[in-house]
Amino acid sequence: MATTNGSGAKLALTVENINQNIRKAKYAVRGELALKSEQYRAQLREGGKNDLPFDKIISANIGNPQQLDQKPITFFRRVASLLENPDLLEKEDVLTQHLGYKSDEIARAKWLLNEVHSVGAYSASQGTPAIRESVAKFIEKRDGHPCSARDIYLSGGASSGVNTLLNTICAKPEVGLLIPIPQYPLYTASLAVLNARCVPYYLDEDQSWGTNLKEIRDAYEKATAEGTEVRAIVVINPGNPTGASLPVEDITAVLKFAAEKNIVVMADEVYQTNVFIGKFVSFKKALRDLQQSSPGTYDHVNLVSLHSISKGMVGECGHRGGYFELIGFDPEVAAEIYKFISIQLCPPVIGQCIVEMMVNPPKEGEPSYELYKKEYDGIYDGLKKRATALFEAFKKMEGVKCQDPQGSMYLFPTITLPNKALEAAKKDGRAADEFYSLRMLDATGVCVVAGSGFGQKEGTLHFRTTFLAPGTDWVGRIEKFHKEFMDEFRD
Amino acid sequence: MATTNGSGAKLALTVENINQNIRKAKYAVRGELALKSEQYRAQLREGGKNDLPFDKIISANIGNPQQLDQKPITFFRRVASLLENPDLLEKEDVLTQHLGYKSDEIARAKWLLNEVHSVGAYSASQGTPAIRESVAKFIEKRDGHPCSARDIYLSGGASSGVNTLLNTICAKPEVGLLIPIPQYPLYTASLAVLNARCVPYYLDEDQSWGTNLKEIRDAYEKATAEGTEVRAIVVINPGNPTGASLPVEDITAVLKFAAEKNIVVMADEVYQTNVFIGKFVSFKKALRDLQQSSPGTYDHVNLVSLHSISKGMVGECGHRGGYFELIGFDPEVAAEIYKFISIQLCPPVIGQCIVEMMVNPPKEGEPSYELYKKEYDGIYDGLKKRATALFEAFKKMEGVKCQDPQGSMYLFPTITLPNKALEAAKKDGRAADEFYSLRMLDATGVCVVAGSGFGQKEGTLHFRTTFLAPGTDWVGRIEKFHKEFMDEFRD
Repeated sequence: MATTNGSGAKLALTVENINQNIRKAKYAVRGELALKSEQYRAQLREGGKNDLPFDKIISANIGNPQQLDQKPITFFRRVASLLENPDLLEKEDVLTQHLGYKSDEIARAKWLLNEVHSVGAYSASQGTPAIRESVAKFIEKRDGHPCSARDIYLSGGASSGVNTLLNTICAKPEVGLLIPIPQYPLYTASLAVLNARCVPYYLDEDQSWGTNLKEIRDAYEKATAEGTEVRAIVVINPGNPTGASLPVEDITAVLKFAAEKNIVVMADEVYQTNVFIGKFVSFKKALRDLQQSSPGTYDHVNLVSLHSISKGMVGECGHRGGYFELIGFDPEVAAEIYKFISIQLCPPVIGQCIVEMMVNPPKEGEPSYELYKKEYDGIYDGLKKRATALFEAFKKMEGVKCQDPQGSMYLFPTITLPNKALEAAKKDGRAADEFYSLRMLDATGVCVVAGSGFGQKEGTLHFRTTFLAPGTDWVGRIEKFHKEFMDEFRD
Repeated sequence: MATTNGSGAKLALTVENINQNIRKAKYAVRGELALKSEQYRAQLREGGKNDLPFDKIISANIGNPQQLDQKPITFFRRVASLLENPDLLEKEDVLTQHLGYKSDEIARAKWLLNEVHSVGAYSASQGTPAIRESVAKFIEKRDGHPCSARDIYLSGGASSGVNTLLNTICAKPEVGLLIPIPQYPLYTASLAVLNARCVPYYLDEDQSWGTNLKEIRDAYEKATAEGTEVRAIVVINPGNPTGASLPVEDITAVLKFAAEKNIVVMADEVYQTNVFIGKFVSFKKALRDLQQSSPGTYDHVNLVSLHSISKGMVGECGHRGGYFELIGFDPEVAAEIYKFISIQLCPPVIGQCIVEMMVNPPKEGEPSYELYKKEYDGIYDGLKKRATALFEAFKKMEGVKCQDPQGSMYLFPTITLPNKALEAAKKDGRAADEFYSLRMLDATGVCVVAGSGFGQKEGTLHFRTTFLAPGTDWVGRIEKFHKEFMDEFRD
């Protein structure tokens, strides 16, 4: 908080005269609970006597793997260290003989340095051309369909890409976007700031949080009848906060609907490698497959796909790297998007380099491959194991129901609380799941996010927790808290 | 440009239905000339035969020091390499004995790692607390007045800070901000996107591009009479594109005016160490001095000061780091600003670490100090020398007039062109200085930005060039081009 001047004189800016759209925006992931958990963390850090009933804060509120001790992948970081200090490249023998660097790490650093010149220099606004070429090759290989580097825009994490696209689409207050509920609140918060409309469509909890076309169609019709000009549909796959991994049928249904209504599809695919059940299919692949099987029918679809270095087994969110691909866009619209991003100059260059390494990791037979594979698989297996352990714990808890863990980094259980708890929450002026989550933090030091921060069906309660934290001790703490909470408020 | 679908079917997004405020925005620094220069660069890179009359592109259009071969400061980069690969810290003897690392570099890396946990983890939205503490100490020392870390917000370069503040201030279409003309087009472009008003006030070219209070007052009165609600004044000191370094009297006059009209002062101080004449005085210091000498009279002033790692002798623009300080802000407004930045999660963490090193560089007596000082002074002296050489060349050129180089990274000469050239430009559908700059690029490979991209008094023509490029050969090329241009169009 800023210092006050204490004089009581009128200030130029007040909460009444600033942009009211910012006031309306809500972003629970870093809201009251997160701030309170940081206060507890500071308290624990100071040491000395305190009456907290825990000795550690578990930030399960945000997908921040390395904050929870996930070790970064060695290949990425060795190359990054050489990019930061290119003088090291003059001592290759020291690097390889004393510090364990591999020849392909050194070669990659040299290649990237040649392309970016220096990680301290601005790149082209759209990102370094050679890195965009690597991204295009990755997409081609993933989907089995062509991809051009001209359509790739590097960004500072996927969030910055979402911001760019929403700024472009939201032309006036009547414009609306179909947003899945529950959703990652970046979308509703950004729409609030841009004074555009959120057109909610509910995901189907009983169908593993899949998309339900009838829900989407009803939401579209209702909004249109009310005067909203629906311009786009957002899909998060794998889901955040739900953890769902969509079957290709759901994806195709959304694309067909978008083609019918002529709306943009925004596919937030940042969790594309965090899939435990089934196989990830990109919206791009599904669209190209549709276009091949019905020539001419789907050529007009505008699709954006977003990806990031923050999630997956990379987990380099602090480096703020990502990209989006524009598919089927009018070149004049793309030129306006280029201008918009150029105002902020360029995404962080070291983040761009990590994007390159994510999409072009060591290959079998290369010196770094073995360690890379081991680390990558280790992270994947660890996440799957922890997701399952947490899921099993939830199954045993009274009034808690949770869908099978399918993907992403989250579980989003439903909780049914006793009436007494609902009343206590009401008295406290809070949503019941917020009340519950706050009590959980106070009792266990585990910070989750209440379902109301993501949106949920009227009358249902949830919370989102990551399954990133190592160990199982914290899961035990949640179980114990939950039992005590239920006992305290039992009707 | 995006691929077209070729089917001719209607697209969801067209230039007619996207956000028209983006279409209205102009950002010449990365506009047509910059794009053309990149095409030339690609052509030269491909090798083979071409009929270009130059063998190298000089990007003098943008303050991008390391793209023009300014070597990064060793201390920053050695520490950054350790932050990227903390495993290196287990081999201190190799680092010091074989790779030249100093003990204070190792110590700094350890301290920063302890504070950020990992540069791959998200930090707090406002930035890592310990880094904000370092920034506060730096400001205290610079100004001789207290500063609290609570008021420091780390950002992804100053541009992102400007974006945050303009989003906050621009509450409705009637809101206007006083913007210096000529200006760095980030301001006008962002105001266009936000659908708010630019209230231009002209800088005084005959007074070394200083601020002229009468100009500011007149602009304010005119705008207010037209129904504009003026909420802030932007000052860029040292100036971009002008290179001016403001005397303290100009700063104090602006602050007094802001106090009188109760408007926010946005002080863009990213060039604070690029000062060749006089001494940099911050708006914060000037405000605190005013407050001390006239207790109670200036307590209500809202001031924001922005700084960055992109400029100065640091030149780490590709790392996207910076900060802003809120002075005198209502805590409730600060809370809304916090929420706004939290939607984009956090600034790049390695950029935050470089902010820390910029504000807390090696001190006299520490092992890294000598090299740091030598590199820092070398960059400073080089910039000053090149600014002077360029200035001397401009003095000799027919119809070119340039103010003494005072600071920042730019010269902004006036050019007087023959009528025939003005007519040729008109025929070409371009502003005359754009026509001139395009011809310069075609003839020399030197890319500058036309004055019309920054705004200028009706009937005057300018261009902005950085003086970052090494050597003097490119200056000779400009001189030769200019002579030939003048000869070609002589009346």
